[in-house]
Amino acid sequence: MSGETAGEGKREMATIDDILSAIDAGQTAALDRLFSFLAIPSISAVPAHFPDCERAADWLVKELGDLGFEAAKYSTPGRPMVVGRVKAQRRDAPHVLFYGHYDVQPVDPLNLWKNPPFEPKLEATPQGDEIVARGACDDKGQLSTFLEACRAFKQFGGTPCHVTALFEGEEETGSPSLPAFLAERAKELKADIALVCDTGMWDRTTPAITVSLRGIVGEEVVLTGANRDLHSGLYGGMAVNPIHVLSKILGELHDDNGAVTLPGFYEGVEDLPEEIADQWNGLDFDAVGFLRDVGLTTPAGERDRTPLELMWSRPTCEVNGIVGGYTGEGTKTVLPAKASAKLTFRLVGKQNPERVAQAFRAFVTSRLPPDVKAEFIGHAGSPAISLPIKNQALRIARHALEAEWGKPAALVGSGGSIPIVGSFKRELGMDSLLVGFGLADDRVHSPNEKYERTSFHKGARSWARILAALAA
Amino acid sequence: MSGETAGEGKREMATIDDILSAIDAGQTAALDRLFSFLAIPSISAVPAHFPDCERAADWLVKELGDLGFEAAKYSTPGRPMVVGRVKAQRRDAPHVLFYGHYDVQPVDPLNLWKNPPFEPKLEATPQGDEIVARGACDDKGQLSTFLEACRAFKQFGGTPCHVTALFEGEEETGSPSLPAFLAERAKELKADIALVCDTGMWDRTTPAITVSLRGIVGEEVVLTGANRDLHSGLYGGMAVNPIHVLSKILGELHDDNGAVTLPGFYEGVEDLPEEIADQWNGLDFDAVGFLRDVGLTTPAGERDRTPLELMWSRPTCEVNGIVGGYTGEGTKTVLPAKASAKLTFRLVGKQNPERVAQAFRAFVTSRLPPDVKAEFIGHAGSPAISLPIKNQALRIARHALEAEWGKPAALVGSGGSIPIVGSFKRELGMDSLLVGFGLADDRVHSPNEKYERTSFHKGARSWARILAALAA
Repeated sequence: MSGETAGEGKREMATIDDILSAIDAGQTAALDRLFSFLAIPSISAVPAHFPDCERAADWLVKELGDLGFEAAKYSTPGRPMVVGRVKAQRRDAPHVLFYGHYDVQPVDPLNLWKNPPFEPKLEATPQGDEIVARGACDDKGQLSTFLEACRAFKQFGGTPCHVTALFEGEEETGSPSLPAFLAERAKELKADIALVCDTGMWDRTTPAITVSLRGIVGEEVVLTGANRDLHSGLYGGMAVNPIHVLSKILGELHDDNGAVTLPGFYEGVEDLPEEIADQWNGLDFDAVGFLRDVGLTTPAGERDRTPLELMWSRPTCEVNGIVGGYTGEGTKTVLPAKASAKLTFRLVGKQNPERVAQAFRAFVTSRLPPDVKAEFIGHAGSPAISLPIKNQALRIARHALEAEWGKPAALVGSGGSIPIVGSFKRELGMDSLLVGFGLADDRVHSPNEKYERTSFHKGARSWARILAALAA
Repeated sequence: MSGETAGEGKREMATIDDILSAIDAGQTAALDRLFSFLAIPSISAVPAHFPDCERAADWLVKELGDLGFEAAKYSTPGRPMVVGRVKAQRRDAPHVLFYGHYDVQPVDPLNLWKNPPFEPKLEATPQGDEIVARGACDDKGQLSTFLEACRAFKQFGGTPCHVTALFEGEEETGSPSLPAFLAERAKELKADIALVCDTGMWDRTTPAITVSLRGIVGEEVVLTGANRDLHSGLYGGMAVNPIHVLSKILGELHDDNGAVTLPGFYEGVEDLPEEIADQWNGLDFDAVGFLRDVGLTTPAGERDRTPLELMWSRPTCEVNGIVGGYTGEGTKTVLPAKASAKLTFRLVGKQNPERVAQAFRAFVTSRLPPDVKAEFIGHAGSPAISLPIKNQALRIARHALEAEWGKPAALVGSGGSIPIVGSFKRELGMDSLLVGFGLADDRVHSPNEKYERTSFHKGARSWARILAALAA
């Protein structure tokens, strides 16, 4: 992208092209580093691998030290945190907090792996080389793109921004230690913006920034009728059946147009900003192909919304599980005493998790016939999060990504939640810029997880551009 | 009930009082016989007890032999059948088939038994002596009432009716071998009427004849949406949720008055004959107490029916089990691929099991949204059965029971099915007279099962009166 040469007066007047050239030149060594990181089986869900989690944390402390960070491992009630800090030469440079996680998902079923999951391999494919290992993408490969950008900057005097790096080892187990850790160290960790590298590209050639995440609130309801299971012959017709009651209530949660019927549910749901709506319409999302991949043909949610709205900017109510009575083989003539369901509501805009949970409880309670009692169990909720389209870091990062990929970055939403982003907002009052280089077919959480070598290489270049642009 | 004396010309001119006196005089020996039968742990559900089932069958063959029956054990694919035959002196006497079962329910939880379940004990209570053991009531005690009546007749020249005794050993496991056995031996087994002793009294002092049994048909439905479980964040709002679809359909199976909404469901449901309705109204059924025992207060079925109608003469639709998605601890954000439910319909009058099953399938199928497929699994069905109130054997037995108990026998219904009764009707074209002496608190199928000594004693006397009256 430039003909300038690097080399003379490196420390004082390095250009972005110097940095990018250094990244290009260092690819082989960078891959070696990533492979040594991937070889550590840091599975946070499996106690036998807790020592490996320690090793992965130690590996990061050493790596950060090599990059000029002042870094240390911090113990928590669970797996340790790694925090490193490095200052930019310019005192008034912006301060970014980079977040990633060194823990990985379990590997079972092991027999579906073509190579052992912790013996990383580079595999040539018609689309280019793939790095195959557990964690290749999620999140060791992704977080390494940032580390490699920092390494290139180090050759030329250091990062242009003040950088705090925060790596946790419990992301795959729900980040139980993170909120308290953030709250205790809020002052040290708070930065101008958080950079999170745990998301994906729009497609192989189009970078993306995730600007909205749906929130979530979970509710479990247990309905009880008689004081024990009854015989459906002897009591059928006389005794209330909690499965009937539960089915009827759940069946009334959506209207014929797919909208959620809870009173007040859509309070705080906002119209999609025009710029985002235009953006999404311009993405030419292949809803037919997306559904076909999972054996479906027809969007099932609210009738008057586009597929991307349904997944990214509209709230939902989903029953995740239901159980009651006899569920084994064959038939059993039981009239059950209990029936229960687990639900999650995906939230957008300013919907309030607590109010949605209360509306659900009132909806159920008001529909209970005589003799049926409802017990509710609430699960952690978090509101939706979005980065305003006018956010300066967002605009800067978008241009930087366009420079690297030759295409504007798509501003996408996510139908799921990324709890860390909520924690940064709540505990540190900090927005997050979600940039990642994963692809839809990276088999994250599945056997033969991979990360494209292109993602790794151009990811590092992308971060170099973003850091330089943020400091400009 | 009579001052006549027995003893002279026993063989030729025994009166019913002779027979009853013989029963009274033989109580101690009768109890010894029952205890030896109860000591055999003939649990048909437990393979380790299959040899005990053989022993119980052998015990019956010997017992029938002692009573003058020509008896043998017949092997089946499961536990053996015992069939015995004895002729009355009068060639034109009526022919009855007496049915009972020698197998018993499992005994777990064993720790809740006060005495070992196969060491029968006589326990004195304020209400009289209780015979406590597994099978004390169901069905060893009950079937022994009939055997003891036959024993008394034997002292005076034999039973007044031709009697075929049929005992099976698989009643507690669904009688799998019985229909084929009946069909193969229809000619030998067919009688004027079947006598079945496996039901109960109306209360401690009121005998009962069960004149109607609800039929049953079972259906299982499995709804499938996507080709695998999906993430409720990524797909929620776009992908159809089979739990929602199933809940909505099941929720529509009953209207606000508790009636079943399947088109055609009430075809063949008949008005209760006035005599039966009067009978039931005269029973002063304590619906409040009945429901209170299981923690309920309010009849939950059709609004405009009495409690006994709801349980005995109205059809029902009950969901016996439902399951879909995640049902473990905590929460999981799954949008499940499948949801399924098991239902049983209780049938009355001339409702056709096959037509009800088809109506259910059509009901479900017509409500499926795009992308949801339904698979149905049918379970064995049988129509309702009733003994016409004008049936001669019924009228005779009713008077005989009144003579013994000093009260008219209640003509009751049963909400459940007794498959053997359907088999007798279908395979042998034979009505069944259901007379039994169990009480509601006999703990049938539960620990510390008991049979009142009064039930055993007056049960034998009742059968003696019935047999004599049928032959009169």
